[in-house]
Amino acid sequence: MLGLMQSHQLLISSLIEFAERHHGEGEVVSRRVEGDIHRYTYKDVATRARQVANALDDLKLGFSDRVATLAWNGYRHLELYFGVSGSGRVLHTLNPRLHPDQIAWIANHAEDTVLCFDMSFLPIVKAIHSRCTTVKHFVALCDADKLPADSGIPGLVSYEDWIGAQSSHYKWPSFDENSASSMCYTSGTTGHPKAALYSHRSTMLHALSGALPDSLCMSARDSVLPVVPMFHVNAWGLPYSAAMTGAKLVFPGPAMDGKSIFELIESEKVTFAAGVPTVWQMMLSHMQAGGLRFSSLKRTVIGGSACPPAMITAFNDVYGVEVLHAWGMTEMSPLGTVCTLKNKHLPMTSEEKMKVRLKQGRGIFGVDMKIIDGDGHELPWDGKAYGDLLVKGPWIISEYFKGEGGSPLVDGWFPTGDVATIDPDGYMQITDRSKDVIKSGGEWISSIDVENIAMAHPAVAMAACIGMKHPKWDERPIIAVMKKPGFDLTREELLKFYEGKTAKFQIPDDVVFVDAIPLGGTGKMQKTKLRELLKDYKLPGA
Amino acid sequence: MLGLMQSHQLLISSLIEFAERHHGEGEVVSRRVEGDIHRYTYKDVATRARQVANALDDLKLGFSDRVATLAWNGYRHLELYFGVSGSGRVLHTLNPRLHPDQIAWIANHAEDTVLCFDMSFLPIVKAIHSRCTTVKHFVALCDADKLPADSGIPGLVSYEDWIGAQSSHYKWPSFDENSASSMCYTSGTTGHPKAALYSHRSTMLHALSGALPDSLCMSARDSVLPVVPMFHVNAWGLPYSAAMTGAKLVFPGPAMDGKSIFELIESEKVTFAAGVPTVWQMMLSHMQAGGLRFSSLKRTVIGGSACPPAMITAFNDVYGVEVLHAWGMTEMSPLGTVCTLKNKHLPMTSEEKMKVRLKQGRGIFGVDMKIIDGDGHELPWDGKAYGDLLVKGPWIISEYFKGEGGSPLVDGWFPTGDVATIDPDGYMQITDRSKDVIKSGGEWISSIDVENIAMAHPAVAMAACIGMKHPKWDERPIIAVMKKPGFDLTREELLKFYEGKTAKFQIPDDVVFVDAIPLGGTGKMQKTKLRELLKDYKLPGA
Repeated sequence: MLGLMQSHQLLISSLIEFAERHHGEGEVVSRRVEGDIHRYTYKDVATRARQVANALDDLKLGFSDRVATLAWNGYRHLELYFGVSGSGRVLHTLNPRLHPDQIAWIANHAEDTVLCFDMSFLPIVKAIHSRCTTVKHFVALCDADKLPADSGIPGLVSYEDWIGAQSSHYKWPSFDENSASSMCYTSGTTGHPKAALYSHRSTMLHALSGALPDSLCMSARDSVLPVVPMFHVNAWGLPYSAAMTGAKLVFPGPAMDGKSIFELIESEKVTFAAGVPTVWQMMLSHMQAGGLRFSSLKRTVIGGSACPPAMITAFNDVYGVEVLHAWGMTEMSPLGTVCTLKNKHLPMTSEEKMKVRLKQGRGIFGVDMKIIDGDGHELPWDGKAYGDLLVKGPWIISEYFKGEGGSPLVDGWFPTGDVATIDPDGYMQITDRSKDVIKSGGEWISSIDVENIAMAHPAVAMAACIGMKHPKWDERPIIAVMKKPGFDLTREELLKFYEGKTAKFQIPDDVVFVDAIPLGGTGKMQKTKLRELLKDYKLPGA
Repeated sequence: MLGLMQSHQLLISSLIEFAERHHGEGEVVSRRVEGDIHRYTYKDVATRARQVANALDDLKLGFSDRVATLAWNGYRHLELYFGVSGSGRVLHTLNPRLHPDQIAWIANHAEDTVLCFDMSFLPIVKAIHSRCTTVKHFVALCDADKLPADSGIPGLVSYEDWIGAQSSHYKWPSFDENSASSMCYTSGTTGHPKAALYSHRSTMLHALSGALPDSLCMSARDSVLPVVPMFHVNAWGLPYSAAMTGAKLVFPGPAMDGKSIFELIESEKVTFAAGVPTVWQMMLSHMQAGGLRFSSLKRTVIGGSACPPAMITAFNDVYGVEVLHAWGMTEMSPLGTVCTLKNKHLPMTSEEKMKVRLKQGRGIFGVDMKIIDGDGHELPWDGKAYGDLLVKGPWIISEYFKGEGGSPLVDGWFPTGDVATIDPDGYMQITDRSKDVIKSGGEWISSIDVENIAMAHPAVAMAACIGMKHPKWDERPIIAVMKKPGFDLTREELLKFYEGKTAKFQIPDDVVFVDAIPLGGTGKMQKTKLRELLKDYKLPGA
């Protein structure tokens, strides 16, 4: 027997409808690419998102057609979030930090039909537009008078012209909540990037659970600054949960230096900010140098890579800001765990609390976790046993777009590639971050990609890339190289060889020449052993 | 194109599974019918809920079969919440405050197959069991040694015997999330009671949205006391949202007097309590008499009927407890609005904030509202225009059980039967019940406004305003008054008391002194009965 309740699909359009109706005067503030501050309301977001939807209809885009963005965090990007997904198309947020070749490959793989980009990224689009064979429409996210006359990009229009011509009346369609809403490619560790394809249902459930008090605790009393880019797994879902709760949204645009971020927090009375450790490190340095203090900031969520204890201490003890350590993945929409305390922790000393805060946190409602040993047996939650971490839940992928990489699930569980412990209270701690990937300033660098370029050099017999601790970027890659007999190769020659073949931040910081790279029984490189061999190594300048 | 996310049905069993795994040591504390305190953990709840499920399987109960309860708020009732719904049966919480004849009628209408009852309600069950023709199994919620030998109830077993015989291993089944999970009859005002039939999906979405910071703000740091009965629309969903967040649960059992409630709040360090105004009135009187203060209570949600301003002031200003005014209905699972402030209100004086707090609040995410005039046209959200309040959302009924009362929806919206204003910030305020509003010469007069003025007179214990037919004005208000013992009050004195406090046309035409005002099972005034009592009454001059 079915219940007798109203049937409403969980759709992303309902978020902006709710925000307009219940929080119409709620503010959305953006630092624009031009450097100035733009300020409007959720009512304006909703109005212009409807114009986006009409503009897409005008282009005769079909249901589930992909609309790509290359954009910073800002109000036009937000309008695309709701206009694209709300009208039944799929929002594809491209990562502008990738190499243009990778971006072109990804746009083709996704079969993007429209590409909307910030003017900062005009050089990238100029370089790749002729290779993006499925893209029929290019939209520059700017006013008409900022549009370059000689871009060479066929049919390029300004966003303001494009949506300005449209009616602001539009009835959001209703459809199956399991329909695709947006997608995000993960760099991965092997082979080509693979995409997570999110659904309206997964996005809505993620936004609900992500806004709970034990997750990011979003309310209409908050002023929220997502420093984490909207091209990184939808800025951890903050654009959605902010609209759901009517929280004020503050977008930093491209200005993510410590001074700009601090000033924005102060001028917009930000109460809650989200970002990777590198960004906070820059901001804390700026504050320390100037003897500055926060007047409004209460909480900050830190994820993307493990948060250094000194940073948690600085926020908590020096600035009185609660740090929420968090963990997730592109494949998880991304929120998996958030480190909020339980009732039992409240009477503890701050030293004892710090031990809890250093962990990646508890699974938010909807995410289940387990750790298994090499034979697949579940390990106890004792805070000591560590094993491969697996997760399941309604906002975790079942497979990648176009079935790339085969079926990733193991008995319905997604293997995260991380090794972790879980304590009796459910707090997870990653002990061995995913084996080989290098996490540099919130970005993942595929060690295999770095190795493949070195291996293409005629003088290289074998190359292994590993991450080395770095005070600012968390980790930086170095490449260990075994030369071919009779060949000469210098550090400088090999580093020069990388130029133009990958994004600059993916070029290793150093080259270490070795006589041999340790191999295991099946011929695979044993990076653990390599790390042991290089345990006394120091990064240049680190 | 569908998204590629894992498929998980939203099921109530997932709540207790999550609580056991992530908050296994989380406490559940109950004052028992016997008067003593019972204390155990979510792990124990989960274990015993599985025993309940096995016990129901043993009885060969089918999917969606109804299992009824007649019980206070306590741990065994909580186990039934999860064991009954989780195993695919429908939990039917009977209201023991109704007349036994009504209870029997409802049990038959629902076709209950099992009836589980607290020993407090043995007299009711003794009186009605032979008339409950569909009930095949009677279970007394007590230990085996407390079971009366001579109850006369065929096959009566004790709950502890019943589940004690069962394995604690059970795999919760997966099924369509739209399946019925529980039901609750609404007393209604005309004809027989009608039932809302909730689904797993509606219950889960309600629990998620209800736990958000702008709703009830539930977290693992809370100790939650639902004084609102579990037979009143599932205690406003608190058993579900507590398990979802790992909040400590504290149940008062039958002891709802001011002293018992206060002592429980203090001994269990309750941070959040929920109940109707009458309960809080008793508690505040007890505290005032003894000069008592709270040591842990931070928030209290007050609903069920409008909260008197003096109560909000007492909690906020005297005791430092934030009052969340809330509004909902059985047909709404029940949460519709909660009065939490927005960012813009924070700098206001407490007087200005009080004006906001007196309203029933903003729609929680998932609930949309509108007000319409007599012709069905939508009215503006200006805080002045008032009209019939309609709602829609995924936890609002589409129709009543067995189609009773026909199709209640109007173009997909559920008419609440309330008359309300909505201000530009989305705060709704109920001005009256639609059927109680007095239509006088084309103007609407709020019976509640008329009553509130009378209630402010020191000699008035209770007052009810109803409309009487009038040849010229269509209807005119009169006020029925029950005097406080030992106080004198004349018709003229009271009418004079109105002068200057309201528009002249809103002053009642007459005062009728009564010995008592009829109250229903939930403590609400029964104006239909009052109208019957006054059926021979004639307006002066009419």
